[in-house]
Amino acid sequence: MKALVYHGPGQRAWVEKPLPTLQLPTDAIVRITKTTICGTDLHILKGDVPEVPPGLTLGHEGVGVVTATGSGVSAFKPGDRVLISCITSCGKCPSCRRGMYSHCEDGGWILGHLIDGTQAEYVRIPHADGSLHRIPADCPDEEALVMLSDILPTGYECGVINGEVQPGDTVAIVGAGPIGLAALMTAQFYSPAEIIMIDPDPNRLEVAKVFGATRGFAPAVAVAEILRLTGGRGVDAAIEAVGVPETFELCQELIAPGGRIANVGVHGRSAALHLEKLWARNITIRTRLVDTVTTPQLLKTVQTGKLRPAQLITHRFPLSEIMRAYDTFSHAAREKALKVILANDGPTG
Amino acid sequence: MKALVYHGPGQRAWVEKPLPTLQLPTDAIVRITKTTICGTDLHILKGDVPEVPPGLTLGHEGVGVVTATGSGVSAFKPGDRVLISCITSCGKCPSCRRGMYSHCEDGGWILGHLIDGTQAEYVRIPHADGSLHRIPADCPDEEALVMLSDILPTGYECGVINGEVQPGDTVAIVGAGPIGLAALMTAQFYSPAEIIMIDPDPNRLEVAKVFGATRGFAPAVAVAEILRLTGGRGVDAAIEAVGVPETFELCQELIAPGGRIANVGVHGRSAALHLEKLWARNITIRTRLVDTVTTPQLLKTVQTGKLRPAQLITHRFPLSEIMRAYDTFSHAAREKALKVILANDGPTG
Amino acid sequence: MKALVYHGPGQRAWVEKPLPTLQLPTDAIVRITKTTICGTDLHILKGDVPEVPPGLTLGHEGVGVVTATGSGVSAFKPGDRVLISCITSCGKCPSCRRGMYSHCEDGGWILGHLIDGTQAEYVRIPHADGSLHRIPADCPDEEALVMLSDILPTGYECGVINGEVQPGDTVAIVGAGPIGLAALMTAQFYSPAEIIMIDPDPNRLEVAKVFGATRGFAPAVAVAEILRLTGGRGVDAAIEAVGVPETFELCQELIAPGGRIANVGVHGRSAALHLEKLWARNITIRTRLVDTVTTPQLLKTVQTGKLRPAQLITHRFPLSEIMRAYDTFSHAAREKALKVILANDGPTG
Amino acid sequence: MKALVYHGPGQRAWVEKPLPTLQLPTDAIVRITKTTICGTDLHILKGDVPEVPPGLTLGHEGVGVVTATGSGVSAFKPGDRVLISCITSCGKCPSCRRGMYSHCEDGGWILGHLIDGTQAEYVRIPHADGSLHRIPADCPDEEALVMLSDILPTGYECGVINGEVQPGDTVAIVGAGPIGLAALMTAQFYSPAEIIMIDPDPNRLEVAKVFGATRGFAPAVAVAEILRLTGGRGVDAAIEAVGVPETFELCQELIAPGGRIANVGVHGRSAALHLEKLWARNITIRTRLVDTVTTPQLLKTVQTGKLRPAQLITHRFPLSEIMRAYDTFSHAAREKALKVILANDGPTG
Repeated sequence: MKALVYHGPGQRAWVEKPLPTLQLPTDAIVRITKTTICGTDLHILKGDVPEVPPGLTLGHEGVGVVTATGSGVSAFKPGDRVLISCITSCGKCPSCRRGMYSHCEDGGWILGHLIDGTQAEYVRIPHADGSLHRIPADCPDEEALVMLSDILPTGYECGVINGEVQPGDTVAIVGAGPIGLAALMTAQFYSPAEIIMIDPDPNRLEVAKVFGATRGFAPAVAVAEILRLTGGRGVDAAIEAVGVPETFELCQELIAPGGRIANVGVHGRSAALHLEKLWARNITIRTRLVDTVTTPQLLKTVQTGKLRPAQLITHRFPLSEIMRAYDTFSHAAREKALKVILANDGPTG
Repeated sequence: MKALVYHGPGQRAWVEKPLPTLQLPTDAIVRITKTTICGTDLHILKGDVPEVPPGLTLGHEGVGVVTATGSGVSAFKPGDRVLISCITSCGKCPSCRRGMYSHCEDGGWILGHLIDGTQAEYVRIPHADGSLHRIPADCPDEEALVMLSDILPTGYECGVINGEVQPGDTVAIVGAGPIGLAALMTAQFYSPAEIIMIDPDPNRLEVAKVFGATRGFAPAVAVAEILRLTGGRGVDAAIEAVGVPETFELCQELIAPGGRIANVGVHGRSAALHLEKLWARNITIRTRLVDTVTTPQLLKTVQTGKLRPAQLITHRFPLSEIMRAYDTFSHAAREKALKVILANDGPTG
Repeated sequence: MKALVYHGPGQRAWVEKPLPTLQLPTDAIVRITKTTICGTDLHILKGDVPEVPPGLTLGHEGVGVVTATGSGVSAFKPGDRVLISCITSCGKCPSCRRGMYSHCEDGGWILGHLIDGTQAEYVRIPHADGSLHRIPADCPDEEALVMLSDILPTGYECGVINGEVQPGDTVAIVGAGPIGLAALMTAQFYSPAEIIMIDPDPNRLEVAKVFGATRGFAPAVAVAEILRLTGGRGVDAAIEAVGVPETFELCQELIAPGGRIANVGVHGRSAALHLEKLWARNITIRTRLVDTVTTPQLLKTVQTGKLRPAQLITHRFPLSEIMRAYDTFSHAAREKALKVILANDGPTG
Repeated sequence: MKALVYHGPGQRAWVEKPLPTLQLPTDAIVRITKTTICGTDLHILKGDVPEVPPGLTLGHEGVGVVTATGSGVSAFKPGDRVLISCITSCGKCPSCRRGMYSHCEDGGWILGHLIDGTQAEYVRIPHADGSLHRIPADCPDEEALVMLSDILPTGYECGVINGEVQPGDTVAIVGAGPIGLAALMTAQFYSPAEIIMIDPDPNRLEVAKVFGATRGFAPAVAVAEILRLTGGRGVDAAIEAVGVPETFELCQELIAPGGRIANVGVHGRSAALHLEKLWARNITIRTRLVDTVTTPQLLKTVQTGKLRPAQLITHRFPLSEIMRAYDTFSHAAREKALKVILANDGPTG
């Protein structure tokens, strides 16, 4: 089969690899029908994630069809249409037992990170019972569900749930890229009064308004504008969706007493925490690697039309053109790309 | 009457001042019977709290007897024995309505900060109905209740509640001074499995064990010892009770995935937040200026012997010797001082 | 002035009464501009609420303009446009301090119940600072805000919050009268997947669909239909909005393991609780007299258009025709009446 | 091997049965070293649990040593000392994923109910990874851990956690039998101010005081005494630990506004829910079949001495004398029996 393989910093290739096989009784093999590229894949290619071994197939998102299951898999059988979670969960360890699948002792984020991932024609899924979700028969728009592998649960769990967004709240989201938009989409589940998007790119702010933002500001003016809007108070919830110290520090300037800062961004450096101001402000800061515990809930909101993940898809390629798709996604601003869909339309088997 | 007055950095005096009078219908005048000195008073004297005006009476803790009430005070009358909360709460503003009295629009921490405080024979208490607590008749140990003005609700609300301490948890408290001990005392309400105290002073660690700590470590060895004890996991809750960047950063090294860091310390500088490690660790960090919402609950635990605030009292002085008491408290380590009680035994009137 | 007075069971009259006057420093006098009639007023007229003394002015909902304030009122002044809460809250007692204003020791539901109410040209509001809400300047549709005096916070607090409605949930609301519709409107704050309305009246079910219900069933078929829809599981939240044993028992048949039953209805008799089935079903049942703690939050959702209270208004009368308005509201089904607005357009002063 | 077998109502026998064998890859076989008898076993013998098939081995509590494991068991191996949970949990189904193991789609309470149980020399444990707990090496008092199979998590989860017991609370527990005592023991994790035990048997009330109750009342006087003690308010949490309508209704009379009623008892009949009083009292009622999600937490409290389960053990028998142990346990009041331990000291293998 073909797979997109990492060959060290800056090097990727679309190459022939052997078909994956069942290694443990809890494994399943899935034929990928749709997959996508994540900002994290670009980080890996930059060499920012050194634990990724050369030769690994990238990708941790996708939908597909089960082609084989181990003897310990009880919830799925060949032929089932499935959504692949970016997080592998054994369901047995203390972390899984408390709903923190991201820290599963035999799982977590391993796909396209420590084991071969989903940017291939087939993928092996460990702990299949806990790491796949059946696609309901009445969900025809399969490609949209790829957005539920990672980006939507990430925006929802790390941003919205951790930010405790409530009806009537004023919410700021720093970063109007795909992940910020995922937080924006799912924040609307809770009917906040205002969702203010902050991004230096005016185009992205316009897109955010289509997705439901009530206002948009450039970072340079955001603090002044938001304090003016809130009578000097600040926002109830600030969601960081970039991953650099400056944006995290911006959240600290925006947050009202009693407010919540939810970090979604992947950070490479420490940030200054202004305890000299915040110690007395009664604030909460939360970090989280997505656990994908909300995937069943998100599936229901898709089925009933409360969430429309297809909004995030801007480009489509055949899987065989994934090298070109990476080029497009690497220049997201120029290409006005949010998420790209890669469709594996080749012969099955 | 006599009062302990701040005259600018490094300058305090025990001087004659006019008796306070009712200024608003919601005021009460309280004759102080017992008061104490807080670490914050020392900070003020160092000049660290520049908004304190010269000439102000210090002190935000105390018990006493009501001598006069305004027409808008309904819950208290002259003769009532009362506990004074360090936080003034109007009960009407949005912050008070959500239980965040520390940010009361017409109160918060003002005693001995923005208005004359409790280190005096008499004090005016604004919003008396929301800022005083009746002392139950069966609470004879009045001096111990002074510990409920500030230090015990601070340890409890900012440390234990914000740290979400649960039965069976492993808890670390960084700093074994009075405020760390207050967190230690109230953490035991929730029956954690381990409470590990961290402090460079071996004497303080010994004292902490008397107060209920299960282990004590010097900061230099704490990380290694705690990771060893917890199988590499870290602690469920880390409570910062010092107020310098180093101790806050130590908490970050100790915290387990899914854990909570509760900041109690008063900070003068920013600390580094190691998001490059913590972004994926699913942790919660909380700050809080004490709201004293738990004072009624703490009073019940004192009445039933679950909490013994007198443990914190190491020294006693007549109020008239408050200058000497400050000298002692300023050298807490040398004097092995935790909290000092100042008793106003002079003639009433 | 004129007022609608209760003269014992079955007897009401629109009569001349003296203008109310300030009795305590915390009182305000409000000139009513808009008021309405509640189902509870009909219960009082039937003699079901025996503590209501003959001669009392009815009504506990309304908006108006402050005409006088006592010396202890700090948040309002004559001329302020205000929303009157059906619950009076002192802000100081233990119940108010924990957000349970319905059990305020010097308040709770007293308007039109124990003291003269809002169906009059003027009303005295005790504890005005805690019982009135300023109407924002940008809220021109004053009559719609009358819905925030009682019915919307009741549906929201007693139904939706107590039912812990979550994104993706399946919710059943039993009773499609005004209070059931208020629960329906506010349940949508949380984006449930399904909101199923249950009522014997097909017209009301049609109205409910306009308000956002996804399905509607008659009680006779509701259990079978809902179990079929949910694969035998039942609903995540069942909201009782009628107040008779049969509808409360219906909720017990509908509820899934782990589900929540929220009682909104005012009950006159006990209901059977089927513990022989429910003991092992991990369910939660909650009751509540509305606390109106969410009124500020609801005001924000109105300002931003997330909530449109005007939807509930079906009829309008001048206040002087309140006797006729009662006739209409007493035959709500026949008149297709939800809420009636009474406008006091007479000369001020 | 020998096993205690149910042969229909009123009929039990200690008989020879074949050794259990692995049936599924997720099974383990455990050699029982200690087991006990539960009140539920007596209910089964009375014929109250008709789904129990004649010929079944009773018992759902025990500790032992693993003798064999299926290929899908990863957390245990032969030789491991284990605690058996009364609840079987697959860890994969939606109920398990939300921590509601009692409603596991392939488990729940099945041991000694639908499949052969633990009152035998060996038992087959399905879904062993999710249904066994390793006994830490430093827990020598193995017999005490049998109390963690069912009774202690039941008292804790269904009583204390569902009752939301908090520091300073006043708690009433109705029923001072073993399960009421388990609630009493674990309620103390949260330092309530008062724990009032209610039972008609004065001996049991005395025993309860040894276990930590602060007061004890007969049901006939309980309401009057408790209302007097609480100034007419009632209790913050009422825990029902009997299972008849009268005791559940007693809880309704005792509960304060804003309070929580937690049902622990197994009920055979419906009870009257006095909504005519409770609708406006802001109360919460919860039911639960134990999920045993807290077993790891309870193990930690045992290891650190916060919980001493051995307090519940009053009688000990060799497993071979289980028929006599049943006779004793069936006359618990006369024999002053709480829990009996059955020790399997026979030859291994």
